[in-house]
Amino acid sequence: MTVFLVGAGPGDPRLITVRGLELVRSCELLVADRLVSQELIAEAPAEAEVVHRDALDQDALNELLVAAGREEKLVVRLKGGDPFLFGRGGEEAIALTEAGVPFEVVPGVSSLTAVPARAGIPVTQRGVAQRLTIVSGRSCDGTGPALEQLAHTPGTLVFFMALAGLREIADGLLLHGADPGLPAAVISNGTLPGERVVAAPLAELADEVEAAGLEPPALLVVGEVVRIRDQLAAFMHAGTGVAC
Amino acid sequence: MTVFLVGAGPGDPRLITVRGLELVRSCELLVADRLVSQELIAEAPAEAEVVHRDALDQDALNELLVAAGREEKLVVRLKGGDPFLFGRGGEEAIALTEAGVPFEVVPGVSSLTAVPARAGIPVTQRGVAQRLTIVSGRSCDGTGPALEQLAHTPGTLVFFMALAGLREIADGLLLHGADPGLPAAVISNGTLPGERVVAAPLAELADEVEAAGLEPPALLVVGEVVRIRDQLAAFMHAGTGVAC
Repeated sequence: MTVFLVGAGPGDPRLITVRGLELVRSCELLVADRLVSQELIAEAPAEAEVVHRDALDQDALNELLVAAGREEKLVVRLKGGDPFLFGRGGEEAIALTEAGVPFEVVPGVSSLTAVPARAGIPVTQRGVAQRLTIVSGRSCDGTGPALEQLAHTPGTLVFFMALAGLREIADGLLLHGADPGLPAAVISNGTLPGERVVAAPLAELADEVEAAGLEPPALLVVGEVVRIRDQLAAFMHAGTGVAC
Repeated sequence: MTVFLVGAGPGDPRLITVRGLELVRSCELLVADRLVSQELIAEAPAEAEVVHRDALDQDALNELLVAAGREEKLVVRLKGGDPFLFGRGGEEAIALTEAGVPFEVVPGVSSLTAVPARAGIPVTQRGVAQRLTIVSGRSCDGTGPALEQLAHTPGTLVFFMALAGLREIADGLLLHGADPGLPAAVISNGTLPGERVVAAPLAELADEVEAAGLEPPALLVVGEVVRIRDQLAAFMHAGTGVAC
């Protein structure tokens, strides 16, 4: 085994898995996403090579993983969240397979649940939301998610990478019949010390988020579960961003 | 801080978070789900009290957490997967809040991505599935998921607790127009040593799963992403179930 596609978790470095941290601590090459915390990168052995994924396009990244894998280096490809949930881990896995390089996927805590959870929002709740729909706020061809269908989808909607297209998403849902009073929240830098949450009815959300000046990465949650945040606020501790 | 709602991850004990394991190792009371691995329970201090959640109904469980929290014990409520994704963590959080007991949620790796991942299935993939819909195979009122809508939902469908209602789900999707050849898979005991996977076209899945005699817990994945499993099979290592 040479190449490990490892989920780093949602931001807080203590939310990597035990298995993931063990691999980071024993790797020879670490290829890390921009959003992976410095504390985790610092866990790699002093003699390990560290490459930042941002310096490479996807093809060059795949080639690097394949080349290092063929040299039988212990390679950790450390990805924000979970490798297989909007993480392009599947593309890297296919490139490794086509090159005959063995690999293993080490799942991670996805922002999907962790980021709303730390903001006091359970994405499912008996009697409130029994269905959860997840889309990317940006689709690869630039057309955006299918808002007409989503406006009539019961349960909770979660949009990844939601900030740039926030007004378009909210307006699209409203245009297609979503309730203007539907509770919604945008969480920026979730699980990190700079975490900020703006919660508002869907019709007011884009203005409030703009006024607050939230920055990416951000997750958008739409649905009745957002109300639970108010219920939990008094006694919920949000955790701290202390290094592991 | 006294009560921690901690996600244990999908099965493999090495997939708990660093923060979660740290809390298990320092707790005074551990309340663990049936599906949490013995290896994790064994990480609790020798003097800690261990209670199995199965012995209690939800009200009695909530009362136990509240009472121990009021005594300022360090309580870890260890839940399979993630506490807030079909985990009833929200209900326990509300009970604690209403009783004025401070708590913290420590997210976990959900079966949602980890179980398909270990079986070679990325739940999202650029150009294949940009939307992910998650439902419980059993809804609390016994009526089951809304199959008519789901039959026309693009992207990947993931059903939790899917085994008991598998034939009803597959037949319902087909009745409402799903393609009989749509790739689908049931994964039983995902990420554990006893993991078993049955993949088949939707129209044949229930028969094949029955013939194979799969046992719960099981997850059902429906969608084109299931095909990627064949592509990855040759060089993917599924990990081992060794204790952390």
